[in-house]
Amino acid sequence: MTSKNELNLTMLCDFYELTMGNGYFNYGYKDRITYFDVFFRSVPDKGGFAIAAGLEQVIDYIENLHFSAEDIDYLRSRQLFSEEFLEYLADFRFTGDIYAIPEGTPIFPREPILTVRAPAIQAQLIETFLLLSINHQSLIATKSNRIVRAAKGRTVLEFGSRRAQGATGAVLGARAAYIGGCAGTACTISDQLYGVRAGGTMAHAWVQMFDSQYEAFKTYCEMYPNNATLLVDTYNTLKSGIPDAIRAFNDVLKPMGIKKCGIRLDSGDLAYLTRQARKMLDNAGWTECTITVSNALDEYLIDDLLDQGACIDCFGVGERLITARSEPVFGGVYKLAAVEDDHGNIIPKIKISENVAKITNPHFKKVYRLFDNATGKAEADYLCLYNEFVDDSQPLTIFDPDITWKEKTLTDFTAKELMVPIFLNGELVYEKPTLAEIKEYCAQQVDTLWDEVKRFDNPHNYYVDLSYDLWSIRRKLLKSNS
Amino acid sequence: MTSKNELNLTMLCDFYELTMGNGYFNYGYKDRITYFDVFFRSVPDKGGFAIAAGLEQVIDYIENLHFSAEDIDYLRSRQLFSEEFLEYLADFRFTGDIYAIPEGTPIFPREPILTVRAPAIQAQLIETFLLLSINHQSLIATKSNRIVRAAKGRTVLEFGSRRAQGATGAVLGARAAYIGGCAGTACTISDQLYGVRAGGTMAHAWVQMFDSQYEAFKTYCEMYPNNATLLVDTYNTLKSGIPDAIRAFNDVLKPMGIKKCGIRLDSGDLAYLTRQARKMLDNAGWTECTITVSNALDEYLIDDLLDQGACIDCFGVGERLITARSEPVFGGVYKLAAVEDDHGNIIPKIKISENVAKITNPHFKKVYRLFDNATGKAEADYLCLYNEFVDDSQPLTIFDPDITWKEKTLTDFTAKELMVPIFLNGELVYEKPTLAEIKEYCAQQVDTLWDEVKRFDNPHNYYVDLSYDLWSIRRKLLKSNS
Repeated sequence: MTSKNELNLTMLCDFYELTMGNGYFNYGYKDRITYFDVFFRSVPDKGGFAIAAGLEQVIDYIENLHFSAEDIDYLRSRQLFSEEFLEYLADFRFTGDIYAIPEGTPIFPREPILTVRAPAIQAQLIETFLLLSINHQSLIATKSNRIVRAAKGRTVLEFGSRRAQGATGAVLGARAAYIGGCAGTACTISDQLYGVRAGGTMAHAWVQMFDSQYEAFKTYCEMYPNNATLLVDTYNTLKSGIPDAIRAFNDVLKPMGIKKCGIRLDSGDLAYLTRQARKMLDNAGWTECTITVSNALDEYLIDDLLDQGACIDCFGVGERLITARSEPVFGGVYKLAAVEDDHGNIIPKIKISENVAKITNPHFKKVYRLFDNATGKAEADYLCLYNEFVDDSQPLTIFDPDITWKEKTLTDFTAKELMVPIFLNGELVYEKPTLAEIKEYCAQQVDTLWDEVKRFDNPHNYYVDLSYDLWSIRRKLLKSNS
Repeated sequence: MTSKNELNLTMLCDFYELTMGNGYFNYGYKDRITYFDVFFRSVPDKGGFAIAAGLEQVIDYIENLHFSAEDIDYLRSRQLFSEEFLEYLADFRFTGDIYAIPEGTPIFPREPILTVRAPAIQAQLIETFLLLSINHQSLIATKSNRIVRAAKGRTVLEFGSRRAQGATGAVLGARAAYIGGCAGTACTISDQLYGVRAGGTMAHAWVQMFDSQYEAFKTYCEMYPNNATLLVDTYNTLKSGIPDAIRAFNDVLKPMGIKKCGIRLDSGDLAYLTRQARKMLDNAGWTECTITVSNALDEYLIDDLLDQGACIDCFGVGERLITARSEPVFGGVYKLAAVEDDHGNIIPKIKISENVAKITNPHFKKVYRLFDNATGKAEADYLCLYNEFVDDSQPLTIFDPDITWKEKTLTDFTAKELMVPIFLNGELVYEKPTLAEIKEYCAQQVDTLWDEVKRFDNPHNYYVDLSYDLWSIRRKLLKSNS
């Protein structure tokens, strides 16, 4: 993991993608063009929107796709695949098209986040990794954005590596948390590989290693006078922790003229303790000393703490962010939307389900976001066929695809197409933004949402509507297949 | 990830481990010997026990520990570390001792799962990865064991890669699920790298790709006559899915004399549908056709389905296993237990907390499990000092460390030491069991627990007691530090 590109994750696929691939190959469907959509059905934590993330790792994965000789040997050993298919895999590369909504964009249920147009075997093989990457990072970016919004402008740092679900859970979780708005991470390698600013000062063990807490604090201030955040809760926060910290600041930092420093609390009643700590620090003249807290925080606890007048400058958020503990699954799925016949005609496909919410939107589609020009706010998303075009100089009437008499006509609006080409004919055509650009873009785009969509409890349902033509095709397919 | 050993995860550490390391180095604490314990405080899902897992990846990590030139360059760029410390890191390797409870063992709160004895910088640096690996895999192995027990002897397969939290979440999650009792996985690379048997047949897309469902099923049976599990819920399970499957079995498998086949349902009312499916298959003579179900299953839903008389041979378990959705955090911590003074004397250390459950067990310790000879069942775990020895030919009186008048005297028992040496002086001294051996060992060891400890609701509290000497030292430290 010292280099992002040494990873070959081609074999991180569900086995059925290979049995189906072998089946398509031997049945003569190898070159049949298929369209698959990645989309999700509900926002975690009953939120009003999610944040798209994980695309960069999809790009790295697609560019590195290949089966090694060992991979082929393993597959041969399973005695299920034809030699012709294994030979095909040995030369495998992705030759299709991928369109996607850029990372950092707010996204909504049932709209395509990413669309693949590729020969069946290729499109099927990449299913697992595409979903895994987008599900994981969108989950964490969405959670991070909630937590950052709860902190109302205060700094939020990602501290959860030790509780992450595996190494990439930690490393890319920190990346996704940064996209969602965290200011940095404790995870060193996430900084080295992805540029997520990493920081940190001391654990309780540092304090315990010295003969006294004061000695531990003084030593730390001497070593890191410009970065002295002292952990004050190893023994007793108010009785000894903060007094020892103030003494160390006075003895080491004051003579150096340094006013910036910090304390961190990792246990106890954070509302009470931080109010007391603030008073003690201010009375001692350390008004620029910041107070960081950690300990099983999330958006709800942060909200509560601020309601209680806690004096906190920075939140270190661990397990509840890095695992999205309150709802640790982002349910993105990958569904066939169309196939091309031998003449290149696109035949829309639908997946019926007894559960109406699980029925798919067929066909090769575009996604528009419609912004009101007067307010700059996003009013609705609009799915249409690939060859439709929204002319935002003309009024557009949109309607609820389930309750069709609910209509709205937009007049003064801007239509922005959300999905952009990432790969065309297997070639990367997308200029990858930097992580800092993605983070900035995310903050901007979240700003285009109405507060009603952003609130935690019972957010307003943002509309994802279908064009009349798409709606009609879906209806026809539902009738003929059910 | 095509090779397990190409990963260098040394930089997957919390940044504070490096600032503390630099501090210890420059303060002259570089060679100071420290003892750290990994332990956890509560069992996920309010269960009675957890399953230890993740040790093999800790071993791989320790053996691969090194800082590359790029790592050193990155650290230098942070302008926090002394050149001497960076030089030290360039030659860094682990020279300490590690003791651990083998993978697959049932474990209980507040007992050491793993103990590190090493120079301070080394012991501190490995904290994050040790916790991450053990927390992640113990979480999934524990959840898997619950789900497998709910299935009461039926096959459970791990299907969750697409919803995992990152690539290692999927790959090593499948490994941990296998340890806990799953029979296999859908994740191909987990088989290739770790020997977790991978399998799979078809997605809905296979059915949609053909002109008719029957054509899709018939083609699949022709290609994989010995592995034909057909997904029957793409359109309508009872009206067309099962009838088309039976027709394909009759047309393709029957003439070949094949009786083993299967169907899979991924939606709908699984209790009702599987009962109907069983009747339809049996009436058509396909009594050996297995029924697999999937769709957001966990131990509670499986229990419910079986209570309702669902006819199911195999459960495919996805997101709720691979993320341990109901409680996705295993709260293992890494705490200083002792340091050695300049004369090699072990000085016990304790971490006080206002939250009593967070107070640590000090000192370098051993963990015994006490088995009743008459029943073979585990009666209690017993923590004592490193130089104590339990003679199981003599009666042993154990007592509750909080409510000390609660005593019990064991007479006819066997004391088994749970932690074994893994590394001594930096050398691996442990013969790693195969994954199949770990899985087998896990099943055997879970069998030594009383049913009362294994039940899902209000399990019996298994005792983790302290020797009198350990209890006394802990008490003395608590008094003197508070």
